[in-house]
Amino acid sequence: MAQKPSIPKGTRDFSPAEMMRRNYIFDTIRGVFRTFGYAPLETPAMETLSTLLGKYGDEGDKLLFKILNSGDYAAGLSDEEVRQAAKISEKGLRYDLTVPFARYVVQHQGDIALPFKRYQIQPVWRADRPQKGRYREFYQCDVDVIGSRSLLNEAELIDIVARVFRALGIRVVLRMNNRKILYGIAEAIGHADKMMDITVAIDKLEKIGLDNVKAELRERGLDDEAIGKLQPILELSGSNDEKLNRLTDVIGCSETGLKGVAEMRTIFDYVSRMEIDLPIELDLSLARGLNYYTGAIFEVKALDYAIGSICGGGRYDDLTGIFGMPNTSGVGISFGADRIYDVMCGLNLFPEELNCSTQVLFVNLGPEEESASIRLIASLRDAGIATEIYPEAAKMKKQMEYANRRGVPCVAIIGSDELARRTVTLKEMRTGEQREVAFEELIEYFR
Amino acid sequence: MAQKPSIPKGTRDFSPAEMMRRNYIFDTIRGVFRTFGYAPLETPAMETLSTLLGKYGDEGDKLLFKILNSGDYAAGLSDEEVRQAAKISEKGLRYDLTVPFARYVVQHQGDIALPFKRYQIQPVWRADRPQKGRYREFYQCDVDVIGSRSLLNEAELIDIVARVFRALGIRVVLRMNNRKILYGIAEAIGHADKMMDITVAIDKLEKIGLDNVKAELRERGLDDEAIGKLQPILELSGSNDEKLNRLTDVIGCSETGLKGVAEMRTIFDYVSRMEIDLPIELDLSLARGLNYYTGAIFEVKALDYAIGSICGGGRYDDLTGIFGMPNTSGVGISFGADRIYDVMCGLNLFPEELNCSTQVLFVNLGPEEESASIRLIASLRDAGIATEIYPEAAKMKKQMEYANRRGVPCVAIIGSDELARRTVTLKEMRTGEQREVAFEELIEYFR
Repeated sequence: MAQKPSIPKGTRDFSPAEMMRRNYIFDTIRGVFRTFGYAPLETPAMETLSTLLGKYGDEGDKLLFKILNSGDYAAGLSDEEVRQAAKISEKGLRYDLTVPFARYVVQHQGDIALPFKRYQIQPVWRADRPQKGRYREFYQCDVDVIGSRSLLNEAELIDIVARVFRALGIRVVLRMNNRKILYGIAEAIGHADKMMDITVAIDKLEKIGLDNVKAELRERGLDDEAIGKLQPILELSGSNDEKLNRLTDVIGCSETGLKGVAEMRTIFDYVSRMEIDLPIELDLSLARGLNYYTGAIFEVKALDYAIGSICGGGRYDDLTGIFGMPNTSGVGISFGADRIYDVMCGLNLFPEELNCSTQVLFVNLGPEEESASIRLIASLRDAGIATEIYPEAAKMKKQMEYANRRGVPCVAIIGSDELARRTVTLKEMRTGEQREVAFEELIEYFR
Repeated sequence: MAQKPSIPKGTRDFSPAEMMRRNYIFDTIRGVFRTFGYAPLETPAMETLSTLLGKYGDEGDKLLFKILNSGDYAAGLSDEEVRQAAKISEKGLRYDLTVPFARYVVQHQGDIALPFKRYQIQPVWRADRPQKGRYREFYQCDVDVIGSRSLLNEAELIDIVARVFRALGIRVVLRMNNRKILYGIAEAIGHADKMMDITVAIDKLEKIGLDNVKAELRERGLDDEAIGKLQPILELSGSNDEKLNRLTDVIGCSETGLKGVAEMRTIFDYVSRMEIDLPIELDLSLARGLNYYTGAIFEVKALDYAIGSICGGGRYDDLTGIFGMPNTSGVGISFGADRIYDVMCGLNLFPEELNCSTQVLFVNLGPEEESASIRLIASLRDAGIATEIYPEAAKMKKQMEYANRRGVPCVAIIGSDELARRTVTLKEMRTGEQREVAFEELIEYFR
């Protein structure tokens, strides 16, 4: 095999340096999930095709990775055999974590205590055309509670968002909307069927201006009266409270709309009582997931780095209905690990110590020195300090080069002089600073 | 959809209870890997078929899960189209972590500093017939160092084994062998081609006795002279040192054999200088991975629970040769998470606190009580204590049932009396013991 091996397009290897940073993100998120009593769940990479098909629209069906049942179907078979083989592809790779979660809840409904709070951090696969920032394998990081309609759940998820990004050091804004409000607006202006058109128009306001938006709405079939009614909503500004008050005036005739406004008030009230320190903005142009969300919609943007949303979610009233278990409302959010990674790289937010998996490397200067090192290393490891010894008594230059290439911050040297004095010379690789430390004081040095 | 959804045979959901136990195992193992300076690596679930095919023998090739390139090939296509679809399956699911590791090292050889120490904890997939304890998706947990022939690496891996199982509380024995010794034995008795036959015979000694083993060796083509020479090895006993000494007498004429003996002596010498507290047994019947291991072979068995090996590995001298990068020796071991899980369940070794993801649940008795609870909960979470509040003011009985079903160890009650006194009643669910604690002292109580 002369050619260098490679991996399928759209997939990635994560090097140690990348892994340590990714683990830092996942560990931070997981730590916050845990303090809220969310419990871990994992589902198989493969689901039966009947679980996956029809859940993500026609486009989604096409993007499923399908698995041949097993065996060597690819070579030397007759047409009929190949046909059989392809036909009995009954499994597909997980496309997201939400559908497997719904499947799990329905399958295990007898064993699960509701409300069921779970988090799930696993890769998903999509046969999308790979491009910058879009992969065929990527991790999702979801937290959902199912079986409770209480809006306290929404507020707790907002608290989770605030805590995660505070811990990571990323300044963010949370934009919120509510599908019931959007429906209420459409209903109030007499075009309940045009919710999506109106939302799209509101979204374009900043880019193309009021007059162009009005023209577009006319094109999409709204009459002048309806557009007139909509105008105060297009021009909505001020605090979230002010926005909700003005909304109430306009959509007072829509029961659904008022319910949406009341939901948002309750959530904002919780947020203020919980003293959640996070800028939150009611944004009627937010149209994420309108096909499945039924109440609150969330989206998080980084304030100091230009990138799409880094976290999002919402309330869905009938997630498990697709598997025959109706009326089980849930709400959840998903953290975008790849984008969070990019933000943290861009803003240089990763802690220094993630740059190397080893805190101290002992150079190896021969059997006697190695023997003395070995015992010291054992006690450093006992104390949880990541320690390595160069496995051969190679040339000093080679060993120092290794330490440099690995990014090891500190090198420990035991030569014959140190051996006689029962000391270690420690060299801080960044500054070049050296210091001699007695065997007995070594652990203290790294604490 | 009337039928309850299910998952493909041979795959598993991991419930929160199982996940917490599995994470405990993985976190423990990972923690030990880290103190030795091993760095995390992840490779994609999919590899190109050319990376995987021919690496696991003919049987392995058949057990690869193959992925259709993309799109909806399974329905409504012509014979020819289906044939094309099946033919362009160019990707397969990872079958183990070793081949992707070798592929990674070769692909990134310019960026990697050797020796390269990595650990990798990811699922693998095999289209094996599912049965008790054998799954089509399971995690492997590998630690390898590549690019160093030093036997200090073997000794450090033994130290890792000792530390992992000590931390998990599992008493184990490490059985070791060396492929060079097995080859030396075969060579010494004039049957270098019959290494495998001899090893199998030695393995059967305990079960069928010396005479039957001799009969079998005769059947397999060994003459009486060879069998006579072999007898002292069949009857080998005593300490590892004694075994190695007697081996030297018998296989002294085999250069390879003597090299194997010397290797084992060096490793045992390291183990004793490192004061590794682990029973180690030289066991010539250990024949694990003889197709690819070239030096030391490891296998770990639990002492107090009957199950196959829970950890194993060895030295391979040319792992990356299959991808065109020869002469890069490595050594590694793999921990069997599923079996370790079974051992720990069987011996009741999991810590109590893994039984619930939530340390304390606040019952919800109405808006005012909820408001008071919310602030306390925030400070408990700040202190890292996993805390939940029942999201609705449901009936007390329902909330207590939820706490019970979830296995929450402690329930916090704030009713109107407590509210007036600024206290919380804490109920330990296992004992039923109750206790009233002031708001200000709550965090201290859980520390």
